Amino acid sequence: MTRPLRLGIAGLGTVGAGTVRIVQTHAELLKRRSGRGIAIAAVCARNRTKNRDIDLSAYDWEDDPVTLARREDVDVLVEVMGGADGAALDATRAAIAAGKDVVTANKALLAHHGQGLAEAAEAAGRLIRFEAAVAGGIPVVKALTEGLAGNEIRRVMGVMNGTCNYILTRMESAGLPYDDVFEEARQLGYLEADPTLDVGGIDAGHKLSLLASIAFGTRVAFEAVALEGIGQISIDDIRRAGDMGYRIKLLGVAQLTGRGLEQRMSPCLVPAESPLGQLQGGTNMVVLEGDSVGQIVLRGAGAGAGPTASAVMSDVIEIARGSRIPTFGQPAASLVAAPVARSTSPAPFYLRMELSDKPGALAKVATVLGDEGISIDRMRQYGHKDASAPVLIVTHRTTRDAIDHAQKRLPATGVVQGQIVAIRIETV
Amino acid sequence: MTRPLRLGIAGLGTVGAGTVRIVQTHAELLKRRSGRGIAIAAVCARNRTKNRDIDLSAYDWEDDPVTLARREDVDVLVEVMGGADGAALDATRAAIAAGKDVVTANKALLAHHGQGLAEAAEAAGRLIRFEAAVAGGIPVVKALTEGLAGNEIRRVMGVMNGTCNYILTRMESAGLPYDDVFEEARQLGYLEADPTLDVGGIDAGHKLSLLASIAFGTRVAFEAVALEGIGQISIDDIRRAGDMGYRIKLLGVAQLTGRGLEQRMSPCLVPAESPLGQLQGGTNMVVLEGDSVGQIVLRGAGAGAGPTASAVMSDVIEIARGSRIPTFGQPAASLVAAPVARSTSPAPFYLRMELSDKPGALAKVATVLGDEGISIDRMRQYGHKDASAPVLIVTHRTTRDAIDHAQKRLPATGVVQGQIVAIRIETV
Repeated sequence: MTRPLRLGIAGLGTVGAGTVRIVQTHAELLKRRSGRGIAIAAVCARNRTKNRDIDLSAYDWEDDPVTLARREDVDVLVEVMGGADGAALDATRAAIAAGKDVVTANKALLAHHGQGLAEAAEAAGRLIRFEAAVAGGIPVVKALTEGLAGNEIRRVMGVMNGTCNYILTRMESAGLPYDDVFEEARQLGYLEADPTLDVGGIDAGHKLSLLASIAFGTRVAFEAVALEGIGQISIDDIRRAGDMGYRIKLLGVAQLTGRGLEQRMSPCLVPAESPLGQLQGGTNMVVLEGDSVGQIVLRGAGAGAGPTASAVMSDVIEIARGSRIPTFGQPAASLVAAPVARSTSPAPFYLRMELSDKPGALAKVATVLGDEGISIDRMRQYGHKDASAPVLIVTHRTTRDAIDHAQKRLPATGVVQGQIVAIRIETV
Repeated sequence: MTRPLRLGIAGLGTVGAGTVRIVQTHAELLKRRSGRGIAIAAVCARNRTKNRDIDLSAYDWEDDPVTLARREDVDVLVEVMGGADGAALDATRAAIAAGKDVVTANKALLAHHGQGLAEAAEAAGRLIRFEAAVAGGIPVVKALTEGLAGNEIRRVMGVMNGTCNYILTRMESAGLPYDDVFEEARQLGYLEADPTLDVGGIDAGHKLSLLASIAFGTRVAFEAVALEGIGQISIDDIRRAGDMGYRIKLLGVAQLTGRGLEQRMSPCLVPAESPLGQLQGGTNMVVLEGDSVGQIVLRGAGAGAGPTASAVMSDVIEIARGSRIPTFGQPAASLVAAPVARSTSPAPFYLRMELSDKPGALAKVATVLGDEGISIDRMRQYGHKDASAPVLIVTHRTTRDAIDHAQKRLPATGVVQGQIVAIRIETV
């Protein structure tokens, strides 16, 4: 019998503790499925005395993750500390240099340093696996790297930040404004220490950039993700979009076209009846489109101790089984630096504005839109309150540039009051 | 550079031709992702002259799949002929005996001979992979074998026969009776040569038995699947179920409990708003429940040249990458023969019957149900036509045994006319 695969677990937050729990409770099952035992050699975390509801007495304790990564008796570093730099980066580099494989849940680390780390790992003949970094328990990294490997991938889309989806669905169900629900989410512990990572779309953008790399064979280009958070979404828009049959989701889209690599993480309208539209609370959904397979939809818990530890363990088992799949599904040196798409693909847009109660107001708006080549699919005008009336417009497919131009020109008509909201519509 | 992995493709129907097409059009992509080239050494099919819209001139042609399987220049037999026995079985055995790996789309073959074939392959140090055998392009075999490998699987469910789902959704949308839609499906070429494979639930039962084996580490036990087809589903039930907020799906459920291994493939009611309820036409959906990951839902095309060939190629790439995962996710010799559950897990049931227009008729029915320990959650009586009225009952959770008893006793009340329909309700 092969000797057990020995883990060094760096980080004992919810994910680390969840991983320890699976190793402890499922020893036999893991051995049957891996072909060898899975053991924990040592652990490492900042706080040694915190009650984590797991028995750690059998494991050596290291205070320094780099020391943990270099231990003779560690085969795989399980990096579940988080953070784009610092200790996580140091420990990962140290593990690779010392000839260990790495399993990580750290999207920020890979979004910023993925290329260099993958190259180093491949030069050393080691693996970096990161199923837990994207969409929690959903095995989307494996689905893309393995399950759809025979496809030219057309598009990757998804709702990949459960906190944002919680906030948006809660705003709708409770009829509460963004600030109130944001505060609620903070008190529930749903937000990162720096909440802009969540609500600014950064965390989801990290994830999208990792999937895009696998999907298109391109270098991770997080800095090229067009990021827009959910902070500007008003309860008005959630309600009005609902009136038109849509819901607002923080949606990531990546595609490689003649225009280059397009990566967006931004609030979009999706049909309320669509699988994405029906996604409630902290659940994640990823849509993968391949030239042969068509559309594959994956749904599951995007966070939490159990689901994320499940993803960590799937990588550990993959390593125990002897997999040699490169980090991004092909050798890191063969990943290309794709040009960034300078424009986004055309789409219908949702527009909301307040029109003055003046004769011909709507005609003026329609004229500006027409001048920009934007044609109107559906329009709804609500009753006047005071001297203005809300108007909703769903356009036919048009470009973001045309919408931007129209937004700049509309105030000069003198009939539009206040801000003009424009949100892209994605019909999956 | 490693030499290419050489395929022998047995069967050139839609799936075989689709596989050839991917190898031809995606040579570079496959090489980048596999780490080596993928080549076709030879092909085999019954009809040499049929126009398949692909160029086969570069490949040797074999008339006998066994000869193909034994060829010196074949590394992997791609068995996409179908059939539980005969040529498919002979060729698979010959390939393993000759030291080749096998990729198959053949659920019938594995449902009947999986254990023996897996043991033979493992004894020979070879692989049998079968992603294409279950749910077409959905990478569910990999999701279960790899993505959820750290989980004790609680339950596997799914709609895995697109033809049945097409028939059921078409009956609903067009308001047509079963026989008409069945004939339509036959003319569209959606049905197997032996249509009971589809509408009898056999094909879907094969798939369920394969997933159950991976999920629970049990030997494939297709003969233990409680099979019920869709031939008895009437347009009345589809309409009435709709009135109560449900849709009827041919749903597979497998779970391992203290009662043993429960495997059912039968028409069930699911909430119309649920992901399963919303599944239209030929699309498949598989729901996997694990102790850590919670619920994962996978959706995609369940059949067709592209999706199925995508699954075939994912297995080919897995082999090219050097995977050594056993057929059912753990050594075949370690799979246990689970006892068959003698009863099914409790569930709510939908009952439909025609009640005579007599005073106290409903009370008599309620009394029989009460005697059997069946309590009523919701009831709806429709207006009388002639001397009877349709009555729908949704029960609280109860057992199939209690329902069976009640069904036997109800005619004796003298108030029930004709057949009593009882369909299980699954709330995913």
